[in-house]
Amino acid sequence: MLNNRIMKEKPSDEEMNTRLKALQKKLAAQTLAVREHKLPVIVLVEGWGTSGKGSLVGRIINNIDPRFYRVASLEKVREEDRRKPFLWRFVKEIPEAGNFVFMDSGWMDQLTREYAHKELSKKDYELRIANVRRFERQLTDNGYLVVKFFLNISKKEQKKRIRTLADDPATKWRVTDTDLAQNKHYDKYMDIFDKFLDATDSSRAPWYIIDGCSKKWAELQVLEILTEGIDVALQNHSLAVPIPQNVFPLMDMPKLSDISLQDKTISDEEYSKRLKELQGKLRELHNSIYHKKIPVIIAYEGWDAAGKGGNIKRVTEALDPRGYEVFPIASPLPYEKSRHFLWRFFTRLPRSGHVAIFDRTWYGRVMVERIEGFCSENDWKRAYNEINEFEKELYDWGAVIIKFWIQIDKDTQLERFTLRQNTPEKQWKITDEDWRNREKWDQYETAVNEMLQKTSTTYAPWHIIESVDKKYARLKTLEIIVDAIEKAIY
Amino acid sequence: MLNNRIMKEKPSDEEMNTRLKALQKKLAAQTLAVREHKLPVIVLVEGWGTSGKGSLVGRIINNIDPRFYRVASLEKVREEDRRKPFLWRFVKEIPEAGNFVFMDSGWMDQLTREYAHKELSKKDYELRIANVRRFERQLTDNGYLVVKFFLNISKKEQKKRIRTLADDPATKWRVTDTDLAQNKHYDKYMDIFDKFLDATDSSRAPWYIIDGCSKKWAELQVLEILTEGIDVALQNHSLAVPIPQNVFPLMDMPKLSDISLQDKTISDEEYSKRLKELQGKLRELHNSIYHKKIPVIIAYEGWDAAGKGGNIKRVTEALDPRGYEVFPIASPLPYEKSRHFLWRFFTRLPRSGHVAIFDRTWYGRVMVERIEGFCSENDWKRAYNEINEFEKELYDWGAVIIKFWIQIDKDTQLERFTLRQNTPEKQWKITDEDWRNREKWDQYETAVNEMLQKTSTTYAPWHIIESVDKKYARLKTLEIIVDAIEKAIY
Repeated sequence: MLNNRIMKEKPSDEEMNTRLKALQKKLAAQTLAVREHKLPVIVLVEGWGTSGKGSLVGRIINNIDPRFYRVASLEKVREEDRRKPFLWRFVKEIPEAGNFVFMDSGWMDQLTREYAHKELSKKDYELRIANVRRFERQLTDNGYLVVKFFLNISKKEQKKRIRTLADDPATKWRVTDTDLAQNKHYDKYMDIFDKFLDATDSSRAPWYIIDGCSKKWAELQVLEILTEGIDVALQNHSLAVPIPQNVFPLMDMPKLSDISLQDKTISDEEYSKRLKELQGKLRELHNSIYHKKIPVIIAYEGWDAAGKGGNIKRVTEALDPRGYEVFPIASPLPYEKSRHFLWRFFTRLPRSGHVAIFDRTWYGRVMVERIEGFCSENDWKRAYNEINEFEKELYDWGAVIIKFWIQIDKDTQLERFTLRQNTPEKQWKITDEDWRNREKWDQYETAVNEMLQKTSTTYAPWHIIESVDKKYARLKTLEIIVDAIEKAIY
Repeated sequence: MLNNRIMKEKPSDEEMNTRLKALQKKLAAQTLAVREHKLPVIVLVEGWGTSGKGSLVGRIINNIDPRFYRVASLEKVREEDRRKPFLWRFVKEIPEAGNFVFMDSGWMDQLTREYAHKELSKKDYELRIANVRRFERQLTDNGYLVVKFFLNISKKEQKKRIRTLADDPATKWRVTDTDLAQNKHYDKYMDIFDKFLDATDSSRAPWYIIDGCSKKWAELQVLEILTEGIDVALQNHSLAVPIPQNVFPLMDMPKLSDISLQDKTISDEEYSKRLKELQGKLRELHNSIYHKKIPVIIAYEGWDAAGKGGNIKRVTEALDPRGYEVFPIASPLPYEKSRHFLWRFFTRLPRSGHVAIFDRTWYGRVMVERIEGFCSENDWKRAYNEINEFEKELYDWGAVIIKFWIQIDKDTQLERFTLRQNTPEKQWKITDEDWRNREKWDQYETAVNEMLQKTSTTYAPWHIIESVDKKYARLKTLEIIVDAIEKAIY
């Protein structure tokens, strides 16, 4: 893609100036349309060291009201980033609808550098390229405009720029080891870049190779592509998105109606005995995953009053408070709603070695949001695959993913609702919404069954927990957690 | 405080168990009252290494619904923390109203360790102790319950515990260098701890020394103090807070009505010439502050349509996009409103070496929130001092703080409102709220005058920018910024 590419002829200065003025005006005007149509725009600027990424971004944003864009400088990978999934540091920067984010270096820069420096094995490198492809597709599927630029300069040009920077004491420190390495082994890097560009080029998020020999000329090329991209995105805005087929190995799951509940009980003595044992095991295991830096993600879904809270409590009792966090998930806040629906979960992921427990989860998309019409049919139908991809990313990161559906029957729920209603210190637990949801029991059951069928992958399977007897349920979840962590450690 | 303290007699096991049960119940019940009364609770757990801070926190939180507390493990100071004001990593953890945060090690741990290791000079150490005292007072002034525990164990006990940990391969790695240093130089640390406890002990946020010889006994002492503290806080809830006198050096400021505006103009040629010069200087300066890691904070306040946006644009044009961020400040979101009003600004501070530009600021507290009654009179009257303290903290961190009031007269505003109304591509800039605020011009003028008098400190002075001629205003802000940064560098 790089080496065999014919660059456009650079126009004359006068022609450039006139075209630039027009395009700068155009972009300034487009920003209003972008806000009106709530279009989120991601501009990824990659390229050779010293190819002028920063100053290019600087020239482009001068045409946009500072309130409507952010620049994310992502060249440096920080300590905290290393404790999160590879894509985390990029996902957390994605813009709200109606805003621009300019990424100065991104996933290409990090992956190709780590691969060139042998910090990444070929296998992991390819795994991450696959993650990147899914990530970009998910963004465009969810209405993001993703424009990717690669600033290209020749070996000779790069050498010249490095020298100029190095000669000036005020800018000397800006020359990085990577810049030097790139220039020394230019052809090797060229080859790596080329293959990466090919592997991540797609019709929805194509690569644009920019001739970086002159600032003005680079700005002109980028403005032309960006403004055109915005025009197209604004037109396509309302088009429905194809729903990808599932490509992940699924487990067979029973229908909720086939789960027998009444016989799943346990005696009090047996309960206290086993609880002590299991919590003891979990306590030790927490120590090891902390030490071995294994991230653990536990997701709780289930009927209202199924006993999630008490169940979670029995798990946390066994954990070192410094190593876990519980996230109660309510309806998204405005700044969360105006981003990809998985964003607010991505930003809540645990550091490696820690445990994150989600009390309700990203599956709200295919349950409450589906049933209440908080998202389009196309959105929730697409979500099954997006969630499987999300969990695959977590799995590739090395996370243990445990998903519980806490199951009770309709009568048991009624008993518990009534009890809460009549017990003063429990009343806060019951709301009108709980009663409204109860009326939609059948719709939920349909949605839950479909969810279980479509998102129980081999790497992140669902566990149905019979919870008419809460004590039985607590032991079962603890057993599953202990078991899953032991598998991950040994 | 430590060495000359008489420890309470440890009760018998049976007595402990009965008292523990009662207190655990009490705390569980209190959590509902805490939510009802929207009381934010900060529990700081400090103490010797291996004194059992973590497991103590673990025992306490078992009585609280996981949805209502967070544990912040703050022993480790991260790379990112070092690029922020000392208090940043603690401030960002403060809870929302109605929630608990348990801090496992906090400002005492960090300060005393850095001082003992000679990473902090005596002068800086005392500066930070002063910051801590203000920080704790601000929290309690704003309705936070702050309970501070120090877990105390003897040199012999600590030695024993270190050995036990070190002997078990599964826990060996938990023994830190600090633990060893503390035990080796126990008396020296004792002395440092003692002085710190005295220096930061206050009636609003007192220290409680806990005998850490036994887990159960420690839990009992802590539960007694915590539950009692909550009872008291719930009673005091409605009491008004004394308004502290200003203790910071203030600059004389003119009244807005004394500012002459019409004569502050500049010719177009002069403008383009000076703009180029100043932006050039600023561009170079940005390079140096980035290199020298000096944080710069620029705060914009002013009348609607005074020209803040265009003014900010002329500043950002001169900055490297990788080194600055613009924060447009709207009304706070729920999770921001339910914390100390400065929290959302603290969490938006730049990293050292970066520039943060605030389009509207923390001064909303003493303007719109005062006038619209979004906070109590006691709140906004207290805020002048709280803001001066906040900016002092930034100044002590080494930040350059530049505050602009962009000034126009009432007629000029009307002209610009009308122009916006009648220009399609500018209509989005004008809202009914702008017109409503305009009706309250006089109230705002009173509030602004008081703000300028009370918050123009020598370390963070206000600059009034005459902006009837926007070009004149832009040059003046640029000159002030360039000047302030040059002073900080040379």
